[in-house]
Amino acid sequence: MQKLTVFFVSDHTGVTAEAVGHSLLSQFRELEYHALTVPFIDTPSKAVALAERVRAAMPAVVISTLTDENIRAGLRNCEAPVFDIFDAFSAPLATLLGMAPTASSGQIHGMSNSYHARIDAVNFALAVDDGLNPERLGEADLILVGVSRAGKTPVSLYLALQYGKKAANYPLTPDDLVAHTLPPVLLKHREKLRGLTLSAERLSQIRNERLPGSRYASLENCRSEIQAAEAMMAASGIPVIDTTRRSVEEIAALIVHEEARG
Amino acid sequence: MQKLTVFFVSDHTGVTAEAVGHSLLSQFRELEYHALTVPFIDTPSKAVALAERVRAAMPAVVISTLTDENIRAGLRNCEAPVFDIFDAFSAPLATLLGMAPTASSGQIHGMSNSYHARIDAVNFALAVDDGLNPERLGEADLILVGVSRAGKTPVSLYLALQYGKKAANYPLTPDDLVAHTLPPVLLKHREKLRGLTLSAERLSQIRNERLPGSRYASLENCRSEIQAAEAMMAASGIPVIDTTRRSVEEIAALIVHEEARG
Repeated sequence: MQKLTVFFVSDHTGVTAEAVGHSLLSQFRELEYHALTVPFIDTPSKAVALAERVRAAMPAVVISTLTDENIRAGLRNCEAPVFDIFDAFSAPLATLLGMAPTASSGQIHGMSNSYHARIDAVNFALAVDDGLNPERLGEADLILVGVSRAGKTPVSLYLALQYGKKAANYPLTPDDLVAHTLPPVLLKHREKLRGLTLSAERLSQIRNERLPGSRYASLENCRSEIQAAEAMMAASGIPVIDTTRRSVEEIAALIVHEEARG
Repeated sequence: MQKLTVFFVSDHTGVTAEAVGHSLLSQFRELEYHALTVPFIDTPSKAVALAERVRAAMPAVVISTLTDENIRAGLRNCEAPVFDIFDAFSAPLATLLGMAPTASSGQIHGMSNSYHARIDAVNFALAVDDGLNPERLGEADLILVGVSRAGKTPVSLYLALQYGKKAANYPLTPDDLVAHTLPPVLLKHREKLRGLTLSAERLSQIRNERLPGSRYASLENCRSEIQAAEAMMAASGIPVIDTTRRSVEEIAALIVHEEARG
């Protein structure tokens, strides 16, 4: 049989359709398929044109997040089965709520905060990245603390872009690590502090990619830096997340949903 | 009636459940609800504990992306209606494909590229942000070009975090804008160039937030910079995206899906 083509179709960026689609299909481990994301299908005529492409690609499946039923109708003649989240859930939700859905609806996207807040937060994260401008820490919603290469910068940027959170990040340098408590500039903002830690093995691996064979990257040095940092965080009573086996988005979600404690 | 509580429930970060949920509910404009995101429900016992919370919050609705049916089963006694994407689509997909879904499945998330590629891309975006280290432009997948505050930095970071694309960004300064073509350092990489532009009114507004009342932010100066930049991009034949009414994620999706041309 010809390889299956799966279309991830959206009236917006396609990020959610892709996430849902890949995840649904990953349940079928044997399945080999060719995936194609088609974003911005936001008029019925674009949907009709897409139906043509789908027909030409059979065997195919469509997994979609099309909020407007008139646009979904444009896909009707595509011959492939269509799994649409709105098609599946809008009617039962309407019945449940006793309300009629409106045709032109909010666009689906993965960003949960207002646009301005997110851009401001990105600019803030860059301005205070890596301990820069510590006098601005008071503006932060959160301050990520950890040794060099613990993952602070990507997490702070993701917190900004996805959640609109102003996240500063502050590296614990070898100079800081000889003390037994966190630097005073941080302790002023203790409520906002979130520690990031990771295994010495993983840290050494990451640092070796950057500075191969250096003392900075050696397992021994990584182990001693992490021990000192963890002791310091524990002494200050701040929540700590182990990032060793977690992705940036997982770490960010843990922080935002405050499940990180303990 | 008591206000409805909507639970967005996920075995992973909750980003997709939130996006799907808010979008589904935005179809019902009159509806007032209290939303609660509950991520990392990744064991049946966590689901059973959540069912208790849902029961206590009635009237409630659950919108979820729980990949494992054993975990979904833990919610069974929550009393609220549950709309789960996997519950709705796994069985019909299995029938269609003639395959059985496996219980422990891939986690749902909005990130489509491998972890390392994304972190490398973030580090790259930061290293070459705002025209820094132009000798590294050869490593870029894409180079965003535009006047100051056209939105290049957030878009390049989002391209990195979401898509694992190495996106550099290069500001067209007043010095560059007196020429009639793009700077030679960019033209060497013409295939990778993507222009960002926006309305002079919007640019002036953004710049006024940064440097109120400055010549830099004046409508007149913004208009002349944009005219020069657009002329230069047109002369070099690079694709250009108008960012005036687009969000960072929309711009990134347009770029990635190459729909930006023309």
